[in-house]
Amino acid sequence: MSHQSDSLHKPCGQMKDQGLKTQKPHPPVMELILRLRQLIDEYSRQLKIKHLQEDLEQEKQRHSQDTREQEAILVQLLGEVVNLLQAGATSSLELQLPRLSLDSRGGGGQQAQLPRKPDQLSHQLSDSKAAVVSCDLSNRGIDISASYKSSFKDFIAYQGDKYHEDKNTLGCINLGLSENKLCIDLLTERLSRSDMNYIDDDLLQYPDWSGHAFLREEVARFLTYYCKAPEQLDPENVVVLSGCCAIFSALTLVLCNPGDAFLIITPFYSGFTFTSSLYVNVELIRVHLDSEITEADTQPFQLTVDKLEKALLEARLKGKKVKGLVLINPNNPLGDIYSRDSLMEYLEFAKRYNLHVIIDEIYMGTVFDESIPFHSVLSMESLPDPNRTHVIWGTSKGFGISGFRFGTLYTHNKEVVSAVGAFGFLHGISGITQHKLCRLLQDREWIDNVYLPTNRSRMQEAHRYITNRLKTLKIPFLSRGSGLYIWVNLKEYLDPCTFEEEQLLYRRFLDNKLLLAPGKAYMCKEPGWFRLTFSDKPLRLKVAMNRFSQALLEQKQYWVEKQMKCVLGE
Amino acid sequence: MSHQSDSLHKPCGQMKDQGLKTQKPHPPVMELILRLRQLIDEYSRQLKIKHLQEDLEQEKQRHSQDTREQEAILVQLLGEVVNLLQAGATSSLELQLPRLSLDSRGGGGQQAQLPRKPDQLSHQLSDSKAAVVSCDLSNRGIDISASYKSSFKDFIAYQGDKYHEDKNTLGCINLGLSENKLCIDLLTERLSRSDMNYIDDDLLQYPDWSGHAFLREEVARFLTYYCKAPEQLDPENVVVLSGCCAIFSALTLVLCNPGDAFLIITPFYSGFTFTSSLYVNVELIRVHLDSEITEADTQPFQLTVDKLEKALLEARLKGKKVKGLVLINPNNPLGDIYSRDSLMEYLEFAKRYNLHVIIDEIYMGTVFDESIPFHSVLSMESLPDPNRTHVIWGTSKGFGISGFRFGTLYTHNKEVVSAVGAFGFLHGISGITQHKLCRLLQDREWIDNVYLPTNRSRMQEAHRYITNRLKTLKIPFLSRGSGLYIWVNLKEYLDPCTFEEEQLLYRRFLDNKLLLAPGKAYMCKEPGWFRLTFSDKPLRLKVAMNRFSQALLEQKQYWVEKQMKCVLGE
Repeated sequence: MSHQSDSLHKPCGQMKDQGLKTQKPHPPVMELILRLRQLIDEYSRQLKIKHLQEDLEQEKQRHSQDTREQEAILVQLLGEVVNLLQAGATSSLELQLPRLSLDSRGGGGQQAQLPRKPDQLSHQLSDSKAAVVSCDLSNRGIDISASYKSSFKDFIAYQGDKYHEDKNTLGCINLGLSENKLCIDLLTERLSRSDMNYIDDDLLQYPDWSGHAFLREEVARFLTYYCKAPEQLDPENVVVLSGCCAIFSALTLVLCNPGDAFLIITPFYSGFTFTSSLYVNVELIRVHLDSEITEADTQPFQLTVDKLEKALLEARLKGKKVKGLVLINPNNPLGDIYSRDSLMEYLEFAKRYNLHVIIDEIYMGTVFDESIPFHSVLSMESLPDPNRTHVIWGTSKGFGISGFRFGTLYTHNKEVVSAVGAFGFLHGISGITQHKLCRLLQDREWIDNVYLPTNRSRMQEAHRYITNRLKTLKIPFLSRGSGLYIWVNLKEYLDPCTFEEEQLLYRRFLDNKLLLAPGKAYMCKEPGWFRLTFSDKPLRLKVAMNRFSQALLEQKQYWVEKQMKCVLGE
Repeated sequence: MSHQSDSLHKPCGQMKDQGLKTQKPHPPVMELILRLRQLIDEYSRQLKIKHLQEDLEQEKQRHSQDTREQEAILVQLLGEVVNLLQAGATSSLELQLPRLSLDSRGGGGQQAQLPRKPDQLSHQLSDSKAAVVSCDLSNRGIDISASYKSSFKDFIAYQGDKYHEDKNTLGCINLGLSENKLCIDLLTERLSRSDMNYIDDDLLQYPDWSGHAFLREEVARFLTYYCKAPEQLDPENVVVLSGCCAIFSALTLVLCNPGDAFLIITPFYSGFTFTSSLYVNVELIRVHLDSEITEADTQPFQLTVDKLEKALLEARLKGKKVKGLVLINPNNPLGDIYSRDSLMEYLEFAKRYNLHVIIDEIYMGTVFDESIPFHSVLSMESLPDPNRTHVIWGTSKGFGISGFRFGTLYTHNKEVVSAVGAFGFLHGISGITQHKLCRLLQDREWIDNVYLPTNRSRMQEAHRYITNRLKTLKIPFLSRGSGLYIWVNLKEYLDPCTFEEEQLLYRRFLDNKLLLAPGKAYMCKEPGWFRLTFSDKPLRLKVAMNRFSQALLEQKQYWVEKQMKCVLGE
């Protein structure tokens, strides 16, 4: 996975003192195979000698010294070959070849050089050496910690310095997070009613790990109604876990063997990248969309079957084992809503190539443009491949209660239901929360007459406000009718148009106490795009947009100064 | 891990028609290395030929046929060698050697034979072959689903047929699950008070992934007080996730690389086995305790440093990379409470060998024998290795609210706090539940004056009732003063004393609508032990013990009939 391979190359602070250095040339698999053969010859020779030795005790001791070190090196090299072969390296891929002396006990001989995953090897070497690179975390622990810190550093800082209209007017405003804060008043009122506070023995005890039956039944009823399913959905096809990313994590794990891959339409929700880096290690192969309009693409960032087909074939040529396709509809971060025909084309494509489809419909409750119809895959009379179509949904976006940590899976595939359900053991939701969710989804009168119309009109108003401000600033953006955010084009403010400059602009917003989400987080291949959340309260939006304008003004001043310096020859 | 390796050998239903068979002889690593050399020679020869071919398009096509298959076989073999080397195979271990023809395109030549993980290879082979073993789940998905079904089948059946004193008197009573149902009345009353139903914006939105600051602060205060910590514990050292197994899952992942191991005192809580089978794949190496009293062991199932040391050295000789030790104190399933001296010895042992210690103290609130003091590791003036001592705790047992799905980690190790905290992204608890937990832990007056004394006296009473019934039946058991269960010796009812007979007895209880937990689930090495939960309401306990007696009576009748048949020569 892109994210994973990035982190593999991350320098490890603890390695500094090792005096190891990476090798310059990148020989192909052939050289690695030859080197491996030499090593195996040498190893088998030593093994023969060792087998001749009679004293078992002595052998054991030696084993833990030189033989163990040789084994470590051999394991390392074999691992490289396995990786290489699995990545289809023979055709084109090249990698850094570690050159490791079999005699690594120091003194003369060849200097050990750094392989791709440095501390893995050092762990396998003798204790004295490992001590130099001692770290309490495993390699993956180090990667996760680094990835978490880099992904959430600013979010954590924001948590400690939130803007408040009275108490902290200089605090940070977060338009980088996709949260719906428009109807907290309605939700607070509804969740405070007495029916919510029911408690019984079952709610306090261990639940069915797939979710309490009462909630799974209500989810099935809710989705039947709001997705316009042709027939009543089956509660036995529902699994309830602590958030949609928990569902994604469990689902990809039970569908993929290590090293398997999923295609994902890019730019895409950054949470899937982070999720994949935690437990599962599934590779997300990006199907990049372009902002440019061409003959084939009638609108920016258009998804076509051609693009899917091309990405799949390229991946397969590289030897990737592609197990499926991830779709997000309505799309995050673009706000696109797929037409019924397009959706069917994507599903037909997946069926043609025996691909699973994970379709994340968490934004279905965020369609604020009533002229654009949303089509859930659950509304289809007949799915091309029902056993390989898996729907994710939750209440975080439509209902604006991300703090409930609720995500659900709907799939006709009984094997998948059972295997994902097992993960409720680790991703369970408290019984009292399950009860509240059930009551909320049950209350159609409140949803249809109070919540939905109010939420829609507030979303429209907030969207109008932000887009008007963007228009005034002459900033291009996508307007697609759904989502809690706007995909904004700030390329004009990057010079040169690089991801480094995008990051600088991101930091300039942050200096103005405004969090936005840069396109890089969504793996967008073009620098300069930002996702800007609009579903916040009017006053906060106003302050945020003032800060936004201010940051862009500063960006312009910075250019002027830079140009002045150039002209003055500084 | 034991559990894992069991499931590796599980027959895959879909494989039946393949006509593959496992090979009889078990040649050691030497033969594998030689075979590998042959394969590499052959492979590199073919690779050379291929590189000479000019037409790229043609090469690509060929690549996806014969070369790809060769690669699959090579990957398989290399994987075996890596496993073998990592398992320290050169000293003693032997394994099944797959004999695979390089020319696997059918027709003549050697017949492909089944390696250890059959369907993994088949996935790598050509599509036409894979189709025969097609399954929507990955190998690990298949294993997880099978493990879930076998582990929770009876629990799920129980969920649908729970005993109820009025509504379902013929329903199932579950004394196999460790739940505290003695004070649901008190909890329901406390959780229904108005302070519990508070809602604010922050509770409905994304939290700090390590847990809301207010809850982490309260957990630190609570543990400082009830664990008698020498100084105020730091909320920054607390991580809150959806249950103790979620903590265990994240913790072992960030401490272990794939294939690393932890020692675990056995018998042990079956949830750790299941957790390890879901995401992490850490090997749990059992340190078996014995029921027999010997010179060294003054009581049954005694843990000594000698046993730890022996298990560690044996594991290391086998080439295992042991990263730490899991302790459960008070113990599940034994009910043991470690003395301060013993605890210190175990911690010193771990420090001596650079081992992490994961200590699960979830049962600290279940000490019902007031004469036995409980010592949390958090109470120690100075821990031998504070950076490698990680405490797990939750409210499921002491407070009897397993349905809250709340688990917490306390560790001085900032790296571990950060890395485990990242998993809040997948194992978050709803904000409203976090609020309720905080209020509960905060209410010391209610805890000290109402909850704790009532809970303790009800536990004592229930424990007395069950042990009296056991005494009447002349059934031996351990009485250790903590836990929600009694470790019961039913060896007398097994003939022969095997795990098969244990399973039959388990089913006999089930036929009498009584769920108990057999020792096998705790990896106990001696058949005949059962864990029997006593923390249930008096009426249910009475009915349950009647069923228990009835099942044992039936077991005796079954023997008599069997012996009669023997005598009559049937």
